[in-house]
Amino acid sequence: MSQSEIEHLIQLLSKLPGLGPRSARRATLYLISRRESLLTPLSTAMRAAAENVKVCGQCGNLDVTDPCDICRDTKRDQSLLCIVEDVSDLWALERSNAFRGLYHVLGGTLSALDGIGPDELNIEPLIRRVGEGGIAEVILALNATVDGQTTSHYLSDRLSDFGVQITRLAHGVPVGGELDYLDDGTLSAALKSRRSIS
Amino acid sequence: MSQSEIEHLIQLLSKLPGLGPRSARRATLYLISRRESLLTPLSTAMRAAAENVKVCGQCGNLDVTDPCDICRDTKRDQSLLCIVEDVSDLWALERSNAFRGLYHVLGGTLSALDGIGPDELNIEPLIRRVGEGGIAEVILALNATVDGQTTSHYLSDRLSDFGVQITRLAHGVPVGGELDYLDDGTLSAALKSRRSIS
Repeated sequence: MSQSEIEHLIQLLSKLPGLGPRSARRATLYLISRRESLLTPLSTAMRAAAENVKVCGQCGNLDVTDPCDICRDTKRDQSLLCIVEDVSDLWALERSNAFRGLYHVLGGTLSALDGIGPDELNIEPLIRRVGEGGIAEVILALNATVDGQTTSHYLSDRLSDFGVQITRLAHGVPVGGELDYLDDGTLSAALKSRRSIS
Repeated sequence: MSQSEIEHLIQLLSKLPGLGPRSARRATLYLISRRESLLTPLSTAMRAAAENVKVCGQCGNLDVTDPCDICRDTKRDQSLLCIVEDVSDLWALERSNAFRGLYHVLGGTLSALDGIGPDELNIEPLIRRVGEGGIAEVILALNATVDGQTTSHYLSDRLSDFGVQITRLAHGVPVGGELDYLDDGTLSAALKSRRSIS
């Protein structure tokens, strides 16, 4: 068979996270049957993203401008700096609309197993950024995983001399969560940090 | 935020079957971090597919040529015609390497619920094709669903006057399947069609 164009598309789609060979075939048929409404626009959107999306030199966010929209937004609180592992975490926090400061994307966590040390991460620019002053509080919003917590400890050590407040996200019961399904660590953290009902 | 290019890409990707908003965001970040190796090639492959993939006028397969490679392959048995619901079924049979005849893609099944009658499907071209002669056996390889079986019955009625042999796929235990997990219908069909061990 010389279905090279189709096979090639299936093969590339199957590399996406969450798509295997079978779902890539399904997606390909879906795309070809929606040529004008989806296949062509998607091709164009991918080309535009490949050409225009940049990594923000200040925070590590992805945007079509550098510095990114968040870094350029003077209405945001420039004294609050939130450290996240990945751009996806930054997007999650932005969707929550709960944070109006600036971000710094590490690009991962320290990991002895994977051989990722401080030099592999966006850490030195962070130290410089905090060293330049103007930041009152650094929020360590890393994942509550072993690697995330290791990285949090490392960063709070490194940042301890700058006289900024260093905080982390609260542990506790997720909103809408059922106690029965929570692990012991979360439950004991939620119990320890219990709040008086005012 | 003016992350329009990124948001637009996420929005389009989330329309693919098997991808929701969350996995579309993940796929977008994955693509942007693999700009040269995946994002640009995928954009190019999609454009090529949009421009070059055709529906075969003879069998309904998708290919970059019309008639498709299968229809043009004179080494295939031109007297065997396999009827399938969709191109994905044709591809599945081709992957099995078990069939060396020609295909006819219906484009769906009859469905009273969805208001799909014979005129909505690729049925009249099939009747003409069989009527032109040269076909000795028609294999109804439709899905073993209610709609698939209804369509099979309808087609075997319509094709009964042409003097061709009409067959369907065997029902039975899937190879590698465990009896304990099979439904009663499959088990009783497998029992009824039991074969002598030679």
